[in-house]
Amino acid sequence: MSERKTNPVPVEPAAGNGILNRRIFLEGALIAGATGAGLTSAAAEPLPVPGWMKVPGADFAPYGQPSKFESKVVRTFAAPANPATRGVGSARTPLHLLDGMLTPSGLHFERSHSGIPDIDPDQHRLVIHGLVKQPLVFTLEALSRYPMTSRIAFVECAGNSGALNAPQPQPLNVPAIHGLLSCSEWTGVKLSTLLDEAGVDPTARWVIAEGADSASMSRSVPLAKAMDDALICIYQNGEHVRPSNGYPVRLLLPGFEGNMNVKWLRRLKLTTGPAMTKDETSKYTVLLKEDKAWQFVFPLEVKSVITRPSPGLALKGPGFYEISGLAWSGNGRIRQVDVSADGGQSWAPAALSEPNLPKAPVRFRLPWQWNGGPAVLQSRAVDDTGMVQPTRTAFANERGLRGQYHYNAIQSWRIDEKGEAVNVYA
Amino acid sequence: MSERKTNPVPVEPAAGNGILNRRIFLEGALIAGATGAGLTSAAAEPLPVPGWMKVPGADFAPYGQPSKFESKVVRTFAAPANPATRGVGSARTPLHLLDGMLTPSGLHFERSHSGIPDIDPDQHRLVIHGLVKQPLVFTLEALSRYPMTSRIAFVECAGNSGALNAPQPQPLNVPAIHGLLSCSEWTGVKLSTLLDEAGVDPTARWVIAEGADSASMSRSVPLAKAMDDALICIYQNGEHVRPSNGYPVRLLLPGFEGNMNVKWLRRLKLTTGPAMTKDETSKYTVLLKEDKAWQFVFPLEVKSVITRPSPGLALKGPGFYEISGLAWSGNGRIRQVDVSADGGQSWAPAALSEPNLPKAPVRFRLPWQWNGGPAVLQSRAVDDTGMVQPTRTAFANERGLRGQYHYNAIQSWRIDEKGEAVNVYA
Repeated sequence: MSERKTNPVPVEPAAGNGILNRRIFLEGALIAGATGAGLTSAAAEPLPVPGWMKVPGADFAPYGQPSKFESKVVRTFAAPANPATRGVGSARTPLHLLDGMLTPSGLHFERSHSGIPDIDPDQHRLVIHGLVKQPLVFTLEALSRYPMTSRIAFVECAGNSGALNAPQPQPLNVPAIHGLLSCSEWTGVKLSTLLDEAGVDPTARWVIAEGADSASMSRSVPLAKAMDDALICIYQNGEHVRPSNGYPVRLLLPGFEGNMNVKWLRRLKLTTGPAMTKDETSKYTVLLKEDKAWQFVFPLEVKSVITRPSPGLALKGPGFYEISGLAWSGNGRIRQVDVSADGGQSWAPAALSEPNLPKAPVRFRLPWQWNGGPAVLQSRAVDDTGMVQPTRTAFANERGLRGQYHYNAIQSWRIDEKGEAVNVYA
Repeated sequence: MSERKTNPVPVEPAAGNGILNRRIFLEGALIAGATGAGLTSAAAEPLPVPGWMKVPGADFAPYGQPSKFESKVVRTFAAPANPATRGVGSARTPLHLLDGMLTPSGLHFERSHSGIPDIDPDQHRLVIHGLVKQPLVFTLEALSRYPMTSRIAFVECAGNSGALNAPQPQPLNVPAIHGLLSCSEWTGVKLSTLLDEAGVDPTARWVIAEGADSASMSRSVPLAKAMDDALICIYQNGEHVRPSNGYPVRLLLPGFEGNMNVKWLRRLKLTTGPAMTKDETSKYTVLLKEDKAWQFVFPLEVKSVITRPSPGLALKGPGFYEISGLAWSGNGRIRQVDVSADGGQSWAPAALSEPNLPKAPVRFRLPWQWNGGPAVLQSRAVDDTGMVQPTRTAFANERGLRGQYHYNAIQSWRIDEKGEAVNVYA
């Protein structure tokens, strides 16, 4: 243990419009008097005894739940226009109300094409067939006998952040724009282990993954990815995968667009080419400028978003605030996140929380002294392949804004003089 | 992405009685035919269409829950002998039914001295007083304005594994012996930041931490720890700390015995000496041999436990199994975990899952070919300070077995010829 620091580092400006040095996080520097965060010393003593200290508290529970005072921390989703289409669409993670890098399983985003199937794990089977030496059928119990591995990884819908393709900035908050991103610790069997056991035919190049929902959601996965880091997941954040995330077994393709991580996995068929399923031809194609398109774009590009401050979390007057958010890349680890309070004119590097893992979100933080005037907050991530999150202008110049998928440009939040944050294009 | 491996590594023995080489995990080596895990190829085609694929699935939910088929994955606790003492005791994490390193918040162990107080976060206050330049009172909103940090860390009750002090081995399973250990990602304000703001008097050496439960659970914490890595936690696994884990704010002292991580934190008083509260004098003292005792032992010693196979999870006949468990140390990071299937006569190093973080559990795994005969499974952890988990005999020789606290000797599971695991002393 280190002794108390006796030479506090003063708060230093690091970029324009109040951005302070991240040394506060990295070195535990003193910020005496810097916060003005509403603390008071007058009422410190005597300590009043609140009512809940005067009665015994609640008993133990087999499975715990959040406090009733946190009932607003929930996923958001639209009611279907037609009741027959219930379970078609998505429910979004309230990222602006969370902190850290992990998503509680109850708040992991959902994207479903025909609702959540009610699967009995004892009856469920996973089949591997097609271009293999011997087709195989696995029960859950059989799968559980194989060597497993665990990793922390994000899953993100290819359509996440697509609202920013709109010509005019919409008055939306973090979950409405970016809430199709979540992170869990996933545990399961490496797909390569099962494919080695089945014996891959040398002509095989693709694996068609099919879900056991009533949409038979299906995607084609390159064999190279299947043999690399693909995982047949049985556990999520320690317990069995949640129904909305693929119970009893889902495919995880770390860093690849969300719907390829097929939930309720029932079938893997090895083939020479992609299957051109409805789910990869009617959707998930990236439209470019001038009538061009990318049929298949699998890894999700480097991205970041400031979750606090953000729309709905108004600042309470000038003073000290922490700017906090998430950065992630389907290509690897986040190398750096820079933050600006003046719409990109000046930048300072943020502190990154540990662990900073490949294909997992990392929490970034930077102190900010808000002077009460206008500000435009931005974050810009760089991954360890050197990919830099583009400005919206650069993104539009390269790809156009016709697509719904793989939008990864810099998000701008304008802070107005009341302290409210709004989605703007800057 | 790497291409499919074309030179599979054969399964190699690494220690006696069927322990195989961890290269299966580290290099993705082929184990064709090794598992015999009940897979079949005859029934691979045609694929039957189960009932749940013929109807639309369930709709979205604001806050998700586990599958109804996992209703046995719950915390366990004893009903109080006297109803007036409900909420006094502990509820245990079902570690044998989980995998990975994290504990879902709903299954995090609980130890309470007077139940879970029903705290309104808007009314709750945290006071810092005593030997400081200015006493301070914080609302939750004020605390939320400070710079935060996140880390993944275990919390373990000092009494965890104490059942192994019994002279004869009891017929208990993993949660009954070791279930007072859990792991979360914790996010909050460094206590050093708040103490710097209050201004620590040079004569202060201890901090008394008090909870807002009706037991006023209180412990004395060395100031050096408070200024090192102590965290005032607001978030757990992304969302607000759960009521049973200290909502709305708890103290985290990474690696220190559980009840010092005071839940429902309402007061930190700086003093010259420990307060000798009821909670540190009537309990949590480590009794040694020959009428000696250690009054204060704070960091939890290096420990590990095999969670699978373990009592209640019977092996289904001879063949391939993964031996899997958790290792952790209050002193730092786990350097190595060795596994034995012959009661400690021979050992082989296990594979460790990433991330392997200081003062956090790491998941270890090793393949095992069970020949159907008797076996005694053991795991032995070493941390990066060089501390080695002792045998029960060595532990007893050093400390005696009079204590209830800080038991960290090697756990032995004997596998009988039916494949059942039992707690034994070996």
